[in-house]
This record gives sequence, C-alpha cells and structure tokens, in this order.
Amino acid sequence: MNAPGHADAVRRPLPDVFLQALQSRFTDRCSLAHAVREHHGRDESPFPPMLPDAVVFARSTEEVAWVARLCHEHHVPLIPYGVGSSLEGHLLAVQGGVSLDLSGMDQIVAINPEDFTATVQAGVTRLTLNEQLRDTGLFFPIDPGADASLGGMAATRASGTNAVRYGTMRENVLTMKVVTADGRVIETANRAKKSSAGYDLTRLFIGSEGTLGIITEVTVRLYPQPEAISAAICNFPDLRSAVQSVIEVIQMGIAIARVEFMDTGAVRATNAYSKLTLKESPLLLFEFHGSPTGVQEQAQIVQEIARDNGGMDFEWADKPEDRSRLWTARHNAYFAGLQLRPGCRASTTDVCVPISALADCVEQTAADMDQASFPYTIVGHVGDGNFHVLMLLDPDDQEQWQESERLNRRLVQRAIQMQGTCTGEHGVGLHKMEFMLAEHGQDSLDIMSSIKQALDPHNILNPGKMIPPRA
Amino acid sequence: MNAPGHADAVRRPLPDVFLQALQSRFTDRCSLAHAVREHHGRDESPFPPMLPDAVVFARSTEEVAWVARLCHEHHVPLIPYGVGSSLEGHLLAVQGGVSLDLSGMDQIVAINPEDFTATVQAGVTRLTLNEQLRDTGLFFPIDPGADASLGGMAATRASGTNAVRYGTMRENVLTMKVVTADGRVIETANRAKKSSAGYDLTRLFIGSEGTLGIITEVTVRLYPQPEAISAAICNFPDLRSAVQSVIEVIQMGIAIARVEFMDTGAVRATNAYSKLTLKESPLLLFEFHGSPTGVQEQAQIVQEIARDNGGMDFEWADKPEDRSRLWTARHNAYFAGLQLRPGCRASTTDVCVPISALADCVEQTAADMDQASFPYTIVGHVGDGNFHVLMLLDPDDQEQWQESERLNRRLVQRAIQMQGTCTGEHGVGLHKMEFMLAEHGQDSLDIMSSIKQALDPHNILNPGKMIPPRA
Repeated sequence: MNAPGHADAVRRPLPDVFLQALQSRFTDRCSLAHAVREHHGRDESPFPPMLPDAVVFARSTEEVAWVARLCHEHHVPLIPYGVGSSLEGHLLAVQGGVSLDLSGMDQIVAINPEDFTATVQAGVTRLTLNEQLRDTGLFFPIDPGADASLGGMAATRASGTNAVRYGTMRENVLTMKVVTADGRVIETANRAKKSSAGYDLTRLFIGSEGTLGIITEVTVRLYPQPEAISAAICNFPDLRSAVQSVIEVIQMGIAIARVEFMDTGAVRATNAYSKLTLKESPLLLFEFHGSPTGVQEQAQIVQEIARDNGGMDFEWADKPEDRSRLWTARHNAYFAGLQLRPGCRASTTDVCVPISALADCVEQTAADMDQASFPYTIVGHVGDGNFHVLMLLDPDDQEQWQESERLNRRLVQRAIQMQGTCTGEHGVGLHKMEFMLAEHGQDSLDIMSSIKQALDPHNILNPGKMIPPRA
Repeated sequence: MNAPGHADAVRRPLPDVFLQALQSRFTDRCSLAHAVREHHGRDESPFPPMLPDAVVFARSTEEVAWVARLCHEHHVPLIPYGVGSSLEGHLLAVQGGVSLDLSGMDQIVAINPEDFTATVQAGVTRLTLNEQLRDTGLFFPIDPGADASLGGMAATRASGTNAVRYGTMRENVLTMKVVTADGRVIETANRAKKSSAGYDLTRLFIGSEGTLGIITEVTVRLYPQPEAISAAICNFPDLRSAVQSVIEVIQMGIAIARVEFMDTGAVRATNAYSKLTLKESPLLLFEFHGSPTGVQEQAQIVQEIARDNGGMDFEWADKPEDRSRLWTARHNAYFAGLQLRPGCRASTTDVCVPISALADCVEQTAADMDQASFPYTIVGHVGDGNFHVLMLLDPDDQEQWQESERLNRRLVQRAIQMQGTCTGEHGVGLHKMEFMLAEHGQDSLDIMSSIKQALDPHNILNPGKMIPPRA
C-alpha cells in the first residue's frame, strides 16, 4: 500500500543551522527520535509511515509562529499534527520536514455560555471540550468517530453523526487564530454570528488541511443540551428499504438529530466488538432532539415512514447509558470493522451525494463490493447523503490494494456523476488527490493553486497534499 | 455626501478597439446612454452616482465570460450589477469601466425538490424564486428587505429576517457558477450537502462583492414550508426590555424563525407608510415555524419570557394575509423611514455583535443617536445580534453627513470592542472600507489582498472596493 507517486517530491536533509535553531529554542520539545518521528509520520490511512525529520511540540501560538518563520526562511516543510486520527494520509511527511505537534495546546481559552460559543486551543479534543461544557447545559455536536482535536477537525472540515441536524465544522466555527506560512498571526473573523465584512477567511482555512496556515485556536458554536433525547434502532429487510426510509425522513423536513446506517456486516462487527446483540440485518440508528412532545412527534412520523418501507419495530434506547453505549458502538464501527479481519488495514471510502441519488449509489456500490476479494462493511451518515465503505485489506497483498483502489475509483466516479463529492468529511490528503481533477476541473484547481501560491509562496505548509500537480 | 476619497482612482477612457468589440458583439445590449449609465452608477447608498463608461446587458454565462476576457485583455474595470439594491456603494464605478447588468439572466435552471435545492441564474430575484417554488411545498428563506437578485445576495453574503433560524447566504448556497477575471468558467462545488474536497471556493466567492469573480448561477438550499406558522407582535415599555427578551429567547435555544426589533420611531414610520395601527412603543415581531404543537410550545415559552421582561400581551397574526401584511411592512421599514423626512437620503448602519452584548450596544447607540441633529430609526434582526440605524439626512447638508459618519464610526468601534463586526449583512462596498483595518488587522487585509491579486491580477473586478489601500 504505497502512497500515491511522489517521485517529484524533494526530500532534503534539514539544514544544520535550521536544526540548531530549532533545538536550541525547544530543547526536549524537539525530537529526532525514530519512534517519535514514526508516530508523527502516519495516520489512520492505509499508507506506510513517511517520517518527518523532526517533531516539535508547541505550546503556544507564538511558538507556532516562531517555527513557521524559521521554516519559511529555510524552505523546510511544516506539517501541523493534532492527534493523528486523519484517514487519508494527511500527516505523512512526503517531503520530510518538521511535524508540529499541537496536542500540548490543550487549553480552553474561553467559554461564553450566554453566546453559545467556546474558544479553545487547537489541541483540545471534542470529548475534552464536551466534558468541560457539561455544567453549562451546552454541548458541541460535531463528532467524527475519533476523539479528534478541534484544530484537526477544522482543518479537514470534519463532521459526523450529528451533522444532519447541526451542520459540519464549516457551519460551526465562528473564528480561528491562524499562523500563516511566514509566521504572521491572524484572527480570521470575530464572535458575531454573521458578518459581511470581506473575504471569508474562516471558511478558507477550514478544510485547507494544513496547506494554507496553521490553526492554533478555534471558536466554535455551542448548542443547548436538548430538553429531551430519544434514540431508537430499526432493522430493515434490505439496504434499499433502509436508505429509502432516510430519504423520505429528510424529504419530510424532519429535523432529525442523527440517522445512521449500518449494513449487516457492520452490525455483525459491532456486535462482536462492542458486545451488543443487535439484530444482524441492515439497520438505522435514529436520535431525536427537542422538547418531549417534539421528540415524540418526530419519532412517530419516522416510525410510520420506516414501517411503510418494511422496517421492523423500533427498539428504543431511552436511558442515557443505553444511548451512550449505542453511540459509542457506532463510533467504534471503524475499529469493529478492523477486528473482522485481524491484522488487516482498512481503506475507507467517503463519497457524499444528493439525497435523491443515495439509494442508487449505496446499492450499486454494495453490488460492486460483493465482487471484491476482501471483506467490507458500509456505514453512513445517510441523512447527509454520506456513507463509508470500510474495505479490510491484507497489508501485504499489493493486488488487493489495487483492487480496492479500483473499486473506490468506480465509486467516486459514480458519486461525481450523481453531482456528489469524493469526500464528504475525511478530506483529500494524499489518498483522494487523484479525484480532485474529475471533481473540480482544471480551472478550479488552478484557482486553488493560485491561492496556495499566494498564501504559501515557498510551498512549505503540508506540501504534496490535496492539490495534484498539473498534468 | 461624497464617496470616500478615491484620489488615487484611475479613470481612463475606454480604448476604441475595446468599445468597438463590445458594441459589435452586444449591439443594442451595450449602452452608452447617460440615463442608463447613471442608473447603473448608483445603488441605495447615500453616495451620488459614479457612472460606468458603458453598460452591457448579459444573457448567459458565456457572454459574461466573453466580456471578462475582453476587459481582462484591455485592463478595463468590470462591475457586475443585479438589481441595484445594495446599500454601501458597491456598484459605483469609481474607476469607470463596464457595468455588467445580469438582470436578464433570469432563468430558473433546475428545481430539485427531492434534494431541497434550486439552481437559478444570477439575475433571478428572491421573490421570483419563491413564486416558482410555490407548488413544490418548499421555499427559500433568505430575505433582505429588497427583492434582490440571488447573484447579488450571494455576492454580499446577504441575510435578513429569517437568518436567525435558517442562516445566511453563507449557509444556504451549495455551489455557484463563477466567471473569473480572465473569463474562465468554474463551478465552485457540487450538489452534495457537505464536502471536504479542497478549498471552499463557494464561501470564498460568497461575500466577495464582485471583486474576485462574477457569479452567474447559484444553487441554493430550500426548506419545506412549515406545517404551521404563527406570528405575533409584542410591545415593550423600552428598548432594553425588548432586546433583553430576545437575548433570553436565543439563550433558551428556541428555534425561533424570526424575531425583529423596531424602535418607536420605526413603528411610527411603518404605521404611516404601511397604514397600520401598531402601538407606538419598542416592539418585537415574532414568527414561529414548526408543527402545530411545536409552534404552540415555542410561542408559550417566548410569551413567558416577554412578560417577565415587561412585555405586553401578544397580538397574534394567524391569518396568512395578516402575516404577509406585517412582514411586508417590516421589509418596507427602510422606505417607511425615508418618508419620515421627505427628500432625505438614508445612511444605514449594520453592526452585528455577540448576543450577550446586544442590549448594551443598542442602548448606548440609541443614547448617542438621541444627540443627533437628524431623525433616526432602529430596526434589527436582533436574534442574530444585528441591528440597523437608519439615519435620515438632508442630502445637501455636508455637516449632517459628517455627523452621521462620526456617529457610525463610534457605533462600529463599540461593536468591534464587543467582538462584533462593522457589517452583519450589507457588505463593505465603499462605505465600510474604512473599518476593515480596525476589524481585521493589517495581516488579514494583506491576505485578502494577496487572494485578490492571485485571482484578479489586473484588478479589473469591481476595483477600489472592499479592501482599503495599504496606508
């Protein structure tokens, strides 16, 4: 499973004067140890590690800016690192350089409950933030499977199971502190809920995957913990009837908080990994947020829709601990899948299509995957038209890797033809770069390149990622 | 009321060869007539007209691209024009050039009810779109006061009374067709509800006010017409008690669809202009969307909050025609204000602050305005922390203009100190340019400039706007 070709990638040793400056400033927070570099040269992608030359553990925006200035001066690649949970090779040091670990920037800067905002350093993780919020009656809804850092989530435009109701990082960041390639520090916006004052720098850096600037602080929107929450599981006879139910729920305009699909394989894996006894057929996990009567209303309509599509009776999870177990199991579907094939590595697809195309897209994909020589599971944030195929590959079998890549290519083509995207929430990194041309066209990629060039003229920020070189 | 100093603005006559090419391609859709140029050299701002040298009426993206290529080649300024309802001098041809009128691009390209999306040409207005949607059971919620074009609304990141529930153009555009400065045509994204595939070009062009590209098609999100709608008016003894009620409603997490503030002057003007008999004290207009019981629940909580803050009994407008009259009156508050002082011109403020700062901000502003030598009214999308002071000025009194500018400057300083913005929804244009440095800092402005330079190297797209020249 080699990373996409980077024959043109330049990997030069760090200049001595650069390394001395770094070590003298950061002493034991600058590491050249192989184990540390290896830890920072990988993520949850199927690629083998590609090591940075050095790892620096930053504790403040000022330190990040200092490192950026040094890297800028010496043209050394600089890759921001959160908790390493990205899935597409975002963190691999294809051109070497410095991995800048921000996990030590773990301070809650401010919680403003009256404005429903929290400002945190980039290394704060979503679960930590929610723990800190517990007494405020508020919560932060965005939940990628992993306990990712807020900086990393902003950098990849992450979302998760709650996005169908609460949106993605795109909709839920008010402003960020960002260090530019040459070490300037900017605040992208302010805490006003809306603004028409100039270019949307916040949205420009969200999803830029460390290639335009280094996010060091994030101010996010918070939401009141719902007065009432209820969750339910509904099994279906087949994939299409489950997906069709979701389409109808969305088309009814139900403000459902979560609606997650799992195929039979994913249910089986989850039962095994999380010690549950879910019925092993395609299922939907629902969650409803609102007032007690609002939640009841929603649940009733959704139950009718599910029943009309052949769904079985709802199994309710009303107690918080039951719900928590269920959603933890759902968030662990990735790791559960890995356990289906001990020793495997996973490659994950991530297309997102308009909801009207979802049933066709999932069904055609499952038919395709049924022909594969490896096991797979499908889970999805189907309310958004987004689903993942987890392909479980023998890490030593290069042919299987090629096969999975072919299948993913077909899936992405299918999604783009349906006016969708190659990546709904994971980002591009190395792995989805090959689809950028088909999805955006050369003119759009040229515009992206010209922005990159304008903001990072020496191409030091996470180089070799996202935008493919012009053919 | 002269526009901010553009002593450095270069105004050169159009090259003959350029003009001949334009006329030969567009014949009677290229006008040099003074009346046409004057109509296109003004907007609803208090500035006197600044005329373009020519006006071209485009009917297709291809025509827009052709004009852009020609202007790019000859370094001629190019200003996209929708319906002329912008408020900050966005459309004034400070450097001459071509005004490109897109109002003839008025086709609905596609309505996809099953995906809750509509694709329209840039010249389609919001009311036209909603008329076309009537039979689908869906609607498009963003409603600036004027019947603006969708292209113009995207270009200014517009919002309006529904934004508190449905968001702004930022949240409600899925993808756009954009013509670049050199006449390339790109699609900024696709119809997937979310995507992590590269830089967010959609959000980059939203709010760019014609300075980065020309929006020719917009795909927006639609919403189901609510099952139940109810609207109510509540009068308050004073400004602070009204605003405090809104703050508490928002802090309770009520998903209110609209909550609009009018001060006594605005109510009085509205009564006179729209022939209503509203009680003349500060008031809030509420609208609730949802299921019948959901709407009832919301209204009950809001009523309690209002009563606790000294609000009087709700007056309900349950019939559609009553609601429609009320909201039309609210949308006409701008024109109603103008009638308070026949022959006046209005200058409108547009700050937006975090909700916790709103009561202080409005109250301090009203105290300030009470000292002014001219009449004013205050209206606001207060659920978002956004409010407008309509300052009614004698167009021939330069001192009064200076006074209004001083008052606005103090207001903007106040808002920025409260972590807010100089413009919540109107945009920068010419009029708010002077605040960009205080709001963003020089480093952020430099980044905006570098993006502008990258996308429009000859500075032909709406030049002299938004980003102030470096001091």
